[in-house]
Amino acid sequence: MAAPSSNTCGAMERSIRERVPPLLTDLYQFTMAYAYWRTGRHLEPAVFELFFRDNPFGGGFSLFAGLHDCLLFLRSFRLTDEDVEFLRSVLPPDTDPAFFQFLRGLDCSGVTLRSVPEGTVVFARVPLMEVSGPLAVVQLLETSLLCLVNYASLVCSNAARFRLAAGPKRRLLEMGLRRAQGPDGGLTASRYTYIGGFDFSSNVQAGFLFGIPVAGTMAHSYVTSFTSLEEVWPQTLVAVNGEKDPVDIVSLTKGWLSRVCELLGAEPGKISEGELASFLSYAIAYPQNFLPVIDSYSVACSGLLNFCAVALALCELGYRPVGVRLDSGDLCRQSVDVHRVFRLCSEHFSISAFDSLIIVGTNNITEQSMAELNKKENAIDVVGVGTHLVTCTQQPSLGCVYKLVEVRGKPKMKISEDPEKSTVPGRKAVYRLVDAEGHPFLDLVCLAAEPPPEAGGSLNCYPLRCDDSCISVIPAQVACLRQDVFTKGQVTHPLCSAAETRAKVQGSLQTLHPRHKRLQEPDSYTVALSEKLHNLVTEIRKGSSNSRNFLLAN
Amino acid sequence: MAAPSSNTCGAMERSIRERVPPLLTDLYQFTMAYAYWRTGRHLEPAVFELFFRDNPFGGGFSLFAGLHDCLLFLRSFRLTDEDVEFLRSVLPPDTDPAFFQFLRGLDCSGVTLRSVPEGTVVFARVPLMEVSGPLAVVQLLETSLLCLVNYASLVCSNAARFRLAAGPKRRLLEMGLRRAQGPDGGLTASRYTYIGGFDFSSNVQAGFLFGIPVAGTMAHSYVTSFTSLEEVWPQTLVAVNGEKDPVDIVSLTKGWLSRVCELLGAEPGKISEGELASFLSYAIAYPQNFLPVIDSYSVACSGLLNFCAVALALCELGYRPVGVRLDSGDLCRQSVDVHRVFRLCSEHFSISAFDSLIIVGTNNITEQSMAELNKKENAIDVVGVGTHLVTCTQQPSLGCVYKLVEVRGKPKMKISEDPEKSTVPGRKAVYRLVDAEGHPFLDLVCLAAEPPPEAGGSLNCYPLRCDDSCISVIPAQVACLRQDVFTKGQVTHPLCSAAETRAKVQGSLQTLHPRHKRLQEPDSYTVALSEKLHNLVTEIRKGSSNSRNFLLAN
Repeated sequence: MAAPSSNTCGAMERSIRERVPPLLTDLYQFTMAYAYWRTGRHLEPAVFELFFRDNPFGGGFSLFAGLHDCLLFLRSFRLTDEDVEFLRSVLPPDTDPAFFQFLRGLDCSGVTLRSVPEGTVVFARVPLMEVSGPLAVVQLLETSLLCLVNYASLVCSNAARFRLAAGPKRRLLEMGLRRAQGPDGGLTASRYTYIGGFDFSSNVQAGFLFGIPVAGTMAHSYVTSFTSLEEVWPQTLVAVNGEKDPVDIVSLTKGWLSRVCELLGAEPGKISEGELASFLSYAIAYPQNFLPVIDSYSVACSGLLNFCAVALALCELGYRPVGVRLDSGDLCRQSVDVHRVFRLCSEHFSISAFDSLIIVGTNNITEQSMAELNKKENAIDVVGVGTHLVTCTQQPSLGCVYKLVEVRGKPKMKISEDPEKSTVPGRKAVYRLVDAEGHPFLDLVCLAAEPPPEAGGSLNCYPLRCDDSCISVIPAQVACLRQDVFTKGQVTHPLCSAAETRAKVQGSLQTLHPRHKRLQEPDSYTVALSEKLHNLVTEIRKGSSNSRNFLLAN
Repeated sequence: MAAPSSNTCGAMERSIRERVPPLLTDLYQFTMAYAYWRTGRHLEPAVFELFFRDNPFGGGFSLFAGLHDCLLFLRSFRLTDEDVEFLRSVLPPDTDPAFFQFLRGLDCSGVTLRSVPEGTVVFARVPLMEVSGPLAVVQLLETSLLCLVNYASLVCSNAARFRLAAGPKRRLLEMGLRRAQGPDGGLTASRYTYIGGFDFSSNVQAGFLFGIPVAGTMAHSYVTSFTSLEEVWPQTLVAVNGEKDPVDIVSLTKGWLSRVCELLGAEPGKISEGELASFLSYAIAYPQNFLPVIDSYSVACSGLLNFCAVALALCELGYRPVGVRLDSGDLCRQSVDVHRVFRLCSEHFSISAFDSLIIVGTNNITEQSMAELNKKENAIDVVGVGTHLVTCTQQPSLGCVYKLVEVRGKPKMKISEDPEKSTVPGRKAVYRLVDAEGHPFLDLVCLAAEPPPEAGGSLNCYPLRCDDSCISVIPAQVACLRQDVFTKGQVTHPLCSAAETRAKVQGSLQTLHPRHKRLQEPDSYTVALSEKLHNLVTEIRKGSSNSRNFLLAN
């Protein structure tokens, strides 16, 4: 295990900026931009909203993440000559050349972003981001913003669920790089699982770029690469606070191994010499960081015995071994057995350092198996999670969408035959209503022009998905959920480090009532429209069914 | 839809190189490298193998992909001063400073990679890559190589399954960028789904970097942003081969709309004027590329009528409209209805261009719904797939592993209590045996030193997963499956473009017998060990259970 490093924000920004060129978007954004430009509508003021329709993993909440990356993307949004030349080659040949001039000059100086702060607990159908600016520009941003928010929020929410399942004390290690969607999928996963509540990552680059604490010691290949004790070199180690003369640690360990075998009634003939050699070599290299993987052959017949022998030798020389890693089989049962042996050694040999040895468990951990750790007896201190964390097996995508709600000051609404797919029109304000115990209980979506609801006052609203029924609520506190974070090409809100956002996540989750945090069958949180906004929706619906017959007009 | 562009290999290489810095790996690779270095074993010649244990998606095969990225990674593998300083800050403080000097000088000049060619059909447990070189270096490469191969092979195999489900004629569009694991997850997905058999991507950057044909026209937001025909500007279009005077296309379209309504008995009062305005604007911008999304309001009552009217007006002016996109509801049923209306217009108005209009379907397509397209009546020419393609919902990760098989010329084997997790020791050669009909029927894993099997000769071998039973086979042809692709720091095999690898995939799939290609319950393909290799495994197993008691030695 290794210590956290400081956040090198410059490097991170460089990396992200290079990752999200304006061409990393769907072609139709450019064909639409051209059509807007051609008809002279490209500069019309427009407002888009970003939201998702269902909380992921059947849960009662989600975490909002990816804002930091969005801000860096907006700030550096600019097409190069090379980009524009490429677009010229793929757009239809009858595209007006002047359009490419327009593209060359594009940036986000006309764009404003209001957003929920990164790391906030959020709910389905609440507009998380409001992107306003020239129609063609805010349309062009769609795919990139969705791409930056969708997976970040999904994997951050998944990490928060693993954290809730694990309980607050157990430490969690993310180790999914090899199973992620390529190099950058892995980097994004490391960043946002840390923000969601993990303690470490195995990913060194994530430590380098984002200041995330990194951890890890050895794989099975290290163990199996050794055959005999003759491969151990040097065969000596200097005691911590003793004489300067190096001690023959191989002989010392062999002595301890005999005593351990005797204590546990183990058969020396079943112990792997190569495994012992690998442990010794590692211990000689890192006497203060000894944490081997002990299941390369057999935990009970070889790995555990070898560990105890080397660890006891280290203790004799004044070092503190760290612990062991289990990577296969029934982790709970094995951890209990391992812990029992640690206690036995501690008592029998009077080595108190053995009481604080840690056990790391890593074996295809799912949210469910993590939750089971709290029900079954076990002695696992640190859990490493890879595949199921980074790929979000339970639900590998979050369906954030980006919908047009206003053009030239006029509310826009998509009226779908599927009511779930209809949008809520107009520019809005979003308030989080908090009860007397400090728990948020309702997110209220209002028209931007409405006065904010008052704490202590009664208000009527229309919960979404409740078919027009009105409820009346009295909030103890009211908080405005979104803030301006990008105005006129400038980031107007401080960019947070991963550690700062991680702290926000824990704070935001803290206030959420446990009934919404339950991993299985949570109570659903209420999201409601204000009376005025509800009336606007009703009006537009009515208007659309009474449209004039334009074929007869003129 | 847009045309393919040429492959800009330089830009691609730049991008990949920046994406995979040597720090993008698990920390334990560096702690192990240090332990090897400390004990003087870091330069020992070692051999690792990369393989997976099960074909993904319950299928009978997989595709091998990611090699191109691996080669670029190996070629540029070098730690910068900044990288090394970061490692100094995270490795334990007692790490010998000379180790960091060693890291600074590291590269892959001592590494050799033998690999199955990218785009080849492969099977579980066949060693796909053999990485040999100095122990510490080849160990360091593990996570990055796994990361580059795992998702690339997974998503490529997924795309191939969608392609098999769709049949050879239907064209397939990848559009998953917004649902991928961040920006680069999306880019990787676009590259490898194209290689797996998709025809287009919506991802412009994938077109730019990899020469993948890109496609797309408009989203619902474009349609809903329009309210009235007054927003259409210019309101005129010049005919293709006619007079130079612009024609009032708005009036022309209105006339056609009346006739279409009459023909179909439709109510003009239900038609959305905003939708018609959006179609007209798009058609004026791109008269040769008219392919609108027609389900923003109602396909039957508005979108289809508006499309026909604009398309008929375009035809009258000599343009060829392209088709329509359906993005919701029952795509099969709707496509049949739409197609019927196209035929009706073609006949009634004698406009033959309406016979070749295409229908694009995009609505949360899964492998299963793709396969159903072949069973139900429908008229869908192009299918767009996003979420389920790029996230590989059915199985979001491929479990490639990287196992040590030889050190200093000595075979290494991990003997696990779980036989599935045991490895096959030693340096190998892999042959694909082909039957008289040209279908591969068995992959034979031999010791590298063995003579290759002869076509027409009988040979004994031991299928994996068959508990020691021997079979005898006579191949009609024998092909060596792997080749040297990287030697002494140099790429020794031509780097293929995405299009070239895509062609290889189709060729490789072509030869595979249909019984292995079945998407459901395929026959399993045989992977077998040669007699000599089988004997080595038996010998090592025996040897390990008869190990001497080293505690008594010396």
